[in-house]
Amino acid sequence: MRILVINPNTTASMTAKIGKAAMSVASAETEIISVNPGDGPPSIEGYFDEAFAVPGIIAEMSKAAAIDAYVIACFDDTGLDAARCATEAPVIGIGEAAFHLASLVAGKFSVVTTLARSVPAIEHNLVKYGLASRCAKVRSSEVAVLDLELPGSNARRRISDEIARAIAEDRAEAIVLGCAGMADLASSLSQEHGVPVLDGVACAVTLAESLFRVGLRTSKVGGYAAPRSKRFSGIYESLSPAGAAAAVISPT
Amino acid sequence: MRILVINPNTTASMTAKIGKAAMSVASAETEIISVNPGDGPPSIEGYFDEAFAVPGIIAEMSKAAAIDAYVIACFDDTGLDAARCATEAPVIGIGEAAFHLASLVAGKFSVVTTLARSVPAIEHNLVKYGLASRCAKVRSSEVAVLDLELPGSNARRRISDEIARAIAEDRAEAIVLGCAGMADLASSLSQEHGVPVLDGVACAVTLAESLFRVGLRTSKVGGYAAPRSKRFSGIYESLSPAGAAAAVISPT
Amino acid sequence: MRILVINPNTTASMTAKIGKAAMSVASAETEIISVNPGDGPPSIEGYFDEAFAVPGIIAEMSKAAAIDAYVIACFDDTGLDAARCATEAPVIGIGEAAFHLASLVAGKFSVVTTLARSVPAIEHNLVKYGLASRCAKVRSSEVAVLDLELPGSNARRRISDEIARAIAEDRAEAIVLGCAGMADLASSLSQEHGVPVLDGVACAVTLAESLFRVGLRTSKVGGYAAPRSKRFSGIYESLSPAGAAAAVISPT
Amino acid sequence: MRILVINPNTTASMTAKIGKAAMSVASAETEIISVNPGDGPPSIEGYFDEAFAVPGIIAEMSKAAAIDAYVIACFDDTGLDAARCATEAPVIGIGEAAFHLASLVAGKFSVVTTLARSVPAIEHNLVKYGLASRCAKVRSSEVAVLDLELPGSNARRRISDEIARAIAEDRAEAIVLGCAGMADLASSLSQEHGVPVLDGVACAVTLAESLFRVGLRTSKVGGYAAPRSKRFSGIYESLSPAGAAAAVISPT
Amino acid sequence: MRILVINPNTTASMTAKIGKAAMSVASAETEIISVNPGDGPPSIEGYFDEAFAVPGIIAEMSKAAAIDAYVIACFDDTGLDAARCATEAPVIGIGEAAFHLASLVAGKFSVVTTLARSVPAIEHNLVKYGLASRCAKVRSSEVAVLDLELPGSNARRRISDEIARAIAEDRAEAIVLGCAGMADLASSLSQEHGVPVLDGVACAVTLAESLFRVGLRTSKVGGYAAPRSKRFSGIYESLSPAGAAAAVISPT
Amino acid sequence: MRILVINPNTTASMTAKIGKAAMSVASAETEIISVNPGDGPPSIEGYFDEAFAVPGIIAEMSKAAAIDAYVIACFDDTGLDAARCATEAPVIGIGEAAFHLASLVAGKFSVVTTLARSVPAIEHNLVKYGLASRCAKVRSSEVAVLDLELPGSNARRRISDEIARAIAEDRAEAIVLGCAGMADLASSLSQEHGVPVLDGVACAVTLAESLFRVGLRTSKVGGYAAPRSKRFSGIYESLSPAGAAAAVISPT
Repeated sequence: MRILVINPNTTASMTAKIGKAAMSVASAETEIISVNPGDGPPSIEGYFDEAFAVPGIIAEMSKAAAIDAYVIACFDDTGLDAARCATEAPVIGIGEAAFHLASLVAGKFSVVTTLARSVPAIEHNLVKYGLASRCAKVRSSEVAVLDLELPGSNARRRISDEIARAIAEDRAEAIVLGCAGMADLASSLSQEHGVPVLDGVACAVTLAESLFRVGLRTSKVGGYAAPRSKRFSGIYESLSPAGAAAAVISPT
Repeated sequence: MRILVINPNTTASMTAKIGKAAMSVASAETEIISVNPGDGPPSIEGYFDEAFAVPGIIAEMSKAAAIDAYVIACFDDTGLDAARCATEAPVIGIGEAAFHLASLVAGKFSVVTTLARSVPAIEHNLVKYGLASRCAKVRSSEVAVLDLELPGSNARRRISDEIARAIAEDRAEAIVLGCAGMADLASSLSQEHGVPVLDGVACAVTLAESLFRVGLRTSKVGGYAAPRSKRFSGIYESLSPAGAAAAVISPT
Repeated sequence: MRILVINPNTTASMTAKIGKAAMSVASAETEIISVNPGDGPPSIEGYFDEAFAVPGIIAEMSKAAAIDAYVIACFDDTGLDAARCATEAPVIGIGEAAFHLASLVAGKFSVVTTLARSVPAIEHNLVKYGLASRCAKVRSSEVAVLDLELPGSNARRRISDEIARAIAEDRAEAIVLGCAGMADLASSLSQEHGVPVLDGVACAVTLAESLFRVGLRTSKVGGYAAPRSKRFSGIYESLSPAGAAAAVISPT
Repeated sequence: MRILVINPNTTASMTAKIGKAAMSVASAETEIISVNPGDGPPSIEGYFDEAFAVPGIIAEMSKAAAIDAYVIACFDDTGLDAARCATEAPVIGIGEAAFHLASLVAGKFSVVTTLARSVPAIEHNLVKYGLASRCAKVRSSEVAVLDLELPGSNARRRISDEIARAIAEDRAEAIVLGCAGMADLASSLSQEHGVPVLDGVACAVTLAESLFRVGLRTSKVGGYAAPRSKRFSGIYESLSPAGAAAAVISPT
Repeated sequence: MRILVINPNTTASMTAKIGKAAMSVASAETEIISVNPGDGPPSIEGYFDEAFAVPGIIAEMSKAAAIDAYVIACFDDTGLDAARCATEAPVIGIGEAAFHLASLVAGKFSVVTTLARSVPAIEHNLVKYGLASRCAKVRSSEVAVLDLELPGSNARRRISDEIARAIAEDRAEAIVLGCAGMADLASSLSQEHGVPVLDGVACAVTLAESLFRVGLRTSKVGGYAAPRSKRFSGIYESLSPAGAAAAVISPT
Repeated sequence: MRILVINPNTTASMTAKIGKAAMSVASAETEIISVNPGDGPPSIEGYFDEAFAVPGIIAEMSKAAAIDAYVIACFDDTGLDAARCATEAPVIGIGEAAFHLASLVAGKFSVVTTLARSVPAIEHNLVKYGLASRCAKVRSSEVAVLDLELPGSNARRRISDEIARAIAEDRAEAIVLGCAGMADLASSLSQEHGVPVLDGVACAVTLAESLFRVGLRTSKVGGYAAPRSKRFSGIYESLSPAGAAAAVISPT
């Protein structure tokens, strides 16, 4: 199968790191294609940045061919609902992927994300997904997204300290890392703290494989129905939906 | 005070109707400026359309000067969180405005919106705002948004029938109309059914006046903090946030 | 329009302070009439005191003529449901008013009230209104209601300290002051802490103006229906409801 | 032990019926004293009536001596919180009593009450008590409270019809009768429908005995603390709390 | 009446202590029979131990004759649902019993249990029963169940310290002791801390008396219906349900 | 990897059907071993049957060697918590598996199960897992579990009719089949109704593969800690936990 992993920001080094994390867990027969939009923010840190990433996600989806499942590799699950409307193939956000798998290996988990400003969006997602009761607390390590790319920063230590607090204070039984840029840290942090530490990229890729194997596709009845046929104005004209038949990007 | 009322879709006739509804309730000293983006969908019917409306909302906000409050005139409250980050002035969605005022005049309300595909987004918003327990049911009348603009359609009758069902079956004590394009129907439907019928545009304008009079502005601590300074790529470059000081569109 | 602002306790100096706060935000064309009952408790600090304030609230409502909206100026929203039954005009509690407006300018707020004994009633109201998920924590400053009237008390400092804790520990993005007697402190505390600080009196007055302008009145279908015609015994006989037609105090 | 059963309305025939229901389940060693206030509404049908019943409840409590537990015999649990502040002895509402016992013999129950206007208050109580998730639906039989006292009314048939609907449509496993005036119907309706049918009066009396036997009294830490010492004005002066020591009506 | 009190573990000294606690609150006319299974774990500390206790509970129920109510004396309410299916007589768990009675004497309670590993099961029960909102926090004292049986252990002090923290930090108005083995400590701890401290055994026995007096039995409509007639294999064959008529253990 | 699929009932034909469903989705490199206990009920229809299945599940787990993940193939997720304590390898219930995957392809799903008596246990699980808000309704088709094994029964038609009602009345966007015995129907029912129809067996197997690939194991901190070392009495002695080191069944 072919999975399109979309890093919604424009930072190519992060796309590469995400692609590497995706490939490291994918089955031999799975092909990972990792991309990022050309237009938009270099990192997503809050609601404002999110808004400018979503059209680029859809554009990347419409450019790729013969894709069996999509992964949106931003922990906010940026644009997930819109992307689900755009295709019959499954679309999985790395945030939701980690929340679901954490719920299968622990009674309660805590999230450790980057900046405090990103906490409310994650809390909203947990409520929306129904899994807020499984999350003990969403914590921020006060590490900026792009600092995760810098060699020599103290990012790992800050994240590790916050994990220790989550285990001691929240009674967290597992930890979800709240940023795609932390994908390379999960394994060593799990070793260090003796609890499952989940990276959403790995979770989303294997869930995409699960859905593909079971033959499950996004329901087209209700909120994820194909967009109605209409002509968009201006810079978005080429992405106008042409009705149910055409607008849904055909899976293989 | 000056309120910028943004119709997030590109249909000018709807912008005009919304502007008229806004002016009809505004105080004498309030100036209403109604606009719509040039780029984007002609109507917003589901998550896909929403995604292409948000950058245009921010663009309209950055073009206008000396604005004291913003109203987003789509019942999905499209782009509300991103818009709140973009300014210190209050930003109010017409959906949330109607939910809050309905909660002050009734124990429970039902929503009557356009198409079934729009129901999940409204339900998500109610959960996010905390007001889901006040809403008996979100109902669809199966009237498309732009059909509300057509003289001679049976739109009003279908909406009225759904209101009757909401009162009888949901024990709804008030009705919230779930589309900006229904703004002109609220008064006569309230008369007809003997319960408060709320139009979000009117609610949002008067709430904007309330917040202004009390001197309340959006908190910049937490999720609505000004976007971090960074350079956006491509078509969004001109909307790049330049940091806390500059990025927050200054209210008067 | 004419708004009757009812201080449910019998302390005239507090009625005056509340009236002043109400007038300071009211529009030029709004007339504020502030009253308090002659019978009842001098301050409301818990459920016991509340019980003896409600008949006096209704008595004040029945004495006043040509009122367009009522504000109940106790943070517990004492007697709000009963008062809503008594009239078709809108009735707004200062607690709910502050909760609703805080929800429009912040993701989460904390409440800082007077004594610990008042916390459960406020928590119950938040659950009833549906807004508990928007409130991070209800905190007490351990300042008694009437100490707020004493010059030279350290009330303001204690409240300010509690606000600081709410911002640091609860991740509160806004603060709601939990007592009508704190109305004069909101503005300076907001300045001091850099977040919106809401006084319920101001919020309720402008919300009353909003509802009036939109033409919204309390629904008479359901829980707020006019009381059934019946004769009360003893000291309450003069307040007996005479049936739907008569019992509902006519708005102008 | 001595239980004071307070019918909060002024209708003596209903007090007698309630007293009879209470005595029929009480242990041999329990003395039941049933009273009603002299001042107030003849029946409680909604929030307005409730407000005028509470001071009379407290007055009856202060008149009685050597009481070990109090039962408030209105299904709305009128004045329960205030009454709990007034004494260290347990105070039990018949609504809450029925909800708690129903939760011990059934997964889910439905409530069948009198008029639709009473439904919201019952729903609020269920949410406040935490038991809303155990209640499938609150239904009204459209029988007025005092019609239950009339021989020859079709009240029983209407209630029975509503019970049948609750079992079929709500998947209710037990039924709670939502009015003290229905106390005499529980047994025959249970026989008829083959599910537990609960009358709150009986439930509250035996729960009062339970609490007494276990030695449990109302916590005086938090919301049910004794009222602070203060002087009430006017008609309520004689009920002024004189401080923690004096104000709490001493149990035997 | 006759109450069968089942200690689900195999430790006879604990059965004796539980029986003594049960007798100390039972009415003169109530006969308490306390038993424990011969097969199973010596103490129940987590989900694994629970699984091996439930068949023994059912076996004890089927051996006893002429029982009017059953009490399951493990704070996890081990096997409560299965036991309810097995009889028409009421079955009460000591955990739920304490939660319900605590809700009648306090706005909020905290639980103090033995080991951290038992906390999640208690939290699940609270959610299932609907009473999670009444519980401020489930706390562990890190005392193992059988250490409560040891003279000279510091168990009581640890529990007392945790109670002090619950009152100070959780704003708990009452304390529920989270283990049947703590039954003998409730009274002195209540004295010491000045709040109600509840032991589930006493609560369950008096609730069983309440239900018996009111004539309430477990609903056989829905989840607690008698097991369908079928033949179990192997070691459980003698406990095979023989259909609705036979399988329900007849109460007196 | 090796997955042990445990059918908790003793019906071998159902074990075979479940094994076939498991194998049909498993990867080539995954070995499926399907077993059922020798002791226990022939089908699980309600809480009573469940109780007698759990020790057999643990016994099967302790007999198998070198297992990388366990699947419990009863829709009630019988014994899931106990099984998680017994091993470090992941354990997945087919109910939870289907709920989680349904949440990735639809906004809301309904469950169609066998008998009404099984509905409450499924509803409890949904609440416990946190996913109740994603489930529109749990419906019963009134088909007994073993009737699914009978050629010529009208089981499929009844299930299909109930699915049609779920789509029309609940606004369900996907359907979860609520019994392991329905595993062979999912694909054709999905075809027929045009929405995703999920069989828990397939979902659980692929989720087990996901967890294995990502390297996630059950957290041993908190509720799923290895059982404490103790000696069980009687028929369970051979399954006594020997302490953390020994008791946790070692994964490969």
